[in-house]
Amino acid sequence: MKKFNPDDLRSLTKRFFLALGFSDEEAEIGSDHLIENNLLGIHSHGIIRILQYALEVKEQKRLKLNVTPKILRQEEGVTLMDAGFCLGPVAGIKASETAIDLAKRYGIGNVTVKNCHHTGRVGAYTSLAAKNNMIGLACFNCANKNIMRVAPFGGREGRITTNPISFACPRNKEFPFLVDMATSTVAEGKVRVAKNKKEKIPNDWIIDKFGKSSNNPKDLYNGGALLPLGGYKQGHKGFALGLIVEILAGALSGNKVAQKNIQQDGGGFFILVLDINKYLPLDEFKNEIEKLFLHIKDTPKLPGFEEIFIPGEIEYYNKIRNLREGIFLEDKTWNDIIELSKNLKIDIRDVIHSET
Amino acid sequence: MKKFNPDDLRSLTKRFFLALGFSDEEAEIGSDHLIENNLLGIHSHGIIRILQYALEVKEQKRLKLNVTPKILRQEEGVTLMDAGFCLGPVAGIKASETAIDLAKRYGIGNVTVKNCHHTGRVGAYTSLAAKNNMIGLACFNCANKNIMRVAPFGGREGRITTNPISFACPRNKEFPFLVDMATSTVAEGKVRVAKNKKEKIPNDWIIDKFGKSSNNPKDLYNGGALLPLGGYKQGHKGFALGLIVEILAGALSGNKVAQKNIQQDGGGFFILVLDINKYLPLDEFKNEIEKLFLHIKDTPKLPGFEEIFIPGEIEYYNKIRNLREGIFLEDKTWNDIIELSKNLKIDIRDVIHSET
Repeated sequence: MKKFNPDDLRSLTKRFFLALGFSDEEAEIGSDHLIENNLLGIHSHGIIRILQYALEVKEQKRLKLNVTPKILRQEEGVTLMDAGFCLGPVAGIKASETAIDLAKRYGIGNVTVKNCHHTGRVGAYTSLAAKNNMIGLACFNCANKNIMRVAPFGGREGRITTNPISFACPRNKEFPFLVDMATSTVAEGKVRVAKNKKEKIPNDWIIDKFGKSSNNPKDLYNGGALLPLGGYKQGHKGFALGLIVEILAGALSGNKVAQKNIQQDGGGFFILVLDINKYLPLDEFKNEIEKLFLHIKDTPKLPGFEEIFIPGEIEYYNKIRNLREGIFLEDKTWNDIIELSKNLKIDIRDVIHSET
Repeated sequence: MKKFNPDDLRSLTKRFFLALGFSDEEAEIGSDHLIENNLLGIHSHGIIRILQYALEVKEQKRLKLNVTPKILRQEEGVTLMDAGFCLGPVAGIKASETAIDLAKRYGIGNVTVKNCHHTGRVGAYTSLAAKNNMIGLACFNCANKNIMRVAPFGGREGRITTNPISFACPRNKEFPFLVDMATSTVAEGKVRVAKNKKEKIPNDWIIDKFGKSSNNPKDLYNGGALLPLGGYKQGHKGFALGLIVEILAGALSGNKVAQKNIQQDGGGFFILVLDINKYLPLDEFKNEIEKLFLHIKDTPKLPGFEEIFIPGEIEYYNKIRNLREGIFLEDKTWNDIIELSKNLKIDIRDVIHSET
């Protein structure tokens, strides 16, 4: 593991985007998005993704260069967009800004987007609403048969993707209340990390191809499935949340829902924004929810827990630490990045000034 | 157990409401709501609740007679209401109809309500949106310290109520897609039923006052707590959902969130409605989601599962059966109802024509 100055990593990432053929604006948005994810500690959605993007550009698969999302329909508080497979975060930000504008006007606004490339971390968009003193609720579906890994409650084969849901609102703090969660027991990335590290996983994360509980992460990729949030006993609730995401992000966007024999590989995105000031004075709202959080943090702990965290706190503490200490990257990731820089004829020493 | 004609039970319930002093409209809405819940098989929210209402009216606690919810603020797509502690379903329906009207005009509408009596089954209101060919999303919080039974992830004391979330949309069927779930592992009512029947409960539902897993339902009422959806390992997700409900239904309504030393006993209600036709043709939407449901139902089953149910199916099958066979009530419930009818001087034989 090596650690890097976040600004250096951001510059490098921007160079990658530019070398791949993206516009300056796309490169700026893309590199900001990825490095922010690293800062927050969500490394699965950080700089590592540039490798996937480079491959997708090279193979001319879904991700397209220099594309601006188009507005398909506009009806008072509702806007439908077609992302045209532009760089994911470009569509995500465009949709969020549009929803924020709608909320300013109507108190509430909703934008749905079809033909999305991977929008990245969904929490980035609800956080944007929170930064504007609004509430954001967003979700993302992906009609890609290769990653429909979450089994229905009572089923033993994957049928939908991990369908994340995010919710954010402003607090009396520098950081928002921020929920960003897969509707499966865990995100697929956690199983993949365990597989790469040759570690066992807890026995309520996945089932193998026979429907049996398994501690072996390889079983997921060998015909197994992720369990929905709630697992064997309460998984009907987690799976219901996953279906809601299919309906809002997949169907209501005019994209596609998970289905048999699907040929498509595009995602659907849904973002709803509520302008708090149209409900009650912002300070009143913030003061009220801080009472809730105080009440929660003050709970006597179970053995093994030193603190109860409010959603968004851990990510903020990660960011403070990573800004101070630098971003740690696994050797494998860094070696892959060096390899990519050679292919794209970028001299890493031009941008990476400190590496320890 | 005895079974009863649903129309007879509805007439009886309406008589109870009238005898308690409610208006004809309140009695009609209240009896429709309770008996519909029995028909759908959700007996915890059925006719049994008239006993609680009678007590609340007698003791002049929260529930008020002949109250019309008031609109406090109206901002394009957003309306805030004060229920004034009117009969719960009266506020729920008024809020839902208002949100439906907003959605017709703006594509999307949101109503929040403070000072709610118990709104009953939240799914009743999202179902109303679905009946109008719209999508409904609703939740309910209750700032009542006596029922804050759900422990935060990592905590060993209850801090919030079971904060239900409901979502519904229309299908190509007689019944909607309908999710209606507590954000705890189970609704408190299930633990209460086990306690009354002197049965043990699964060991991932509750913790006792020492924070230990317990099979004894009595431990919940003796300083224990319900675990959030996801339990010991993934409970941070379920608890996050519970906090979202506090924010939307408790804070954004101007009601109160769960907090220390709360004196209030009122609920907050949040309902969001999206008019599908403002997004895409209704048939297109319905056809798309039916592909999803087909794909889900077609999953190979785990041992012990004969069918995979789409949310809303079981409730519909219950209703079909109960309309045909009658509504079954426990002896204890029926005896309590007979007792109440004597107190209110209602001759049960006037309305109950068949009892088997």
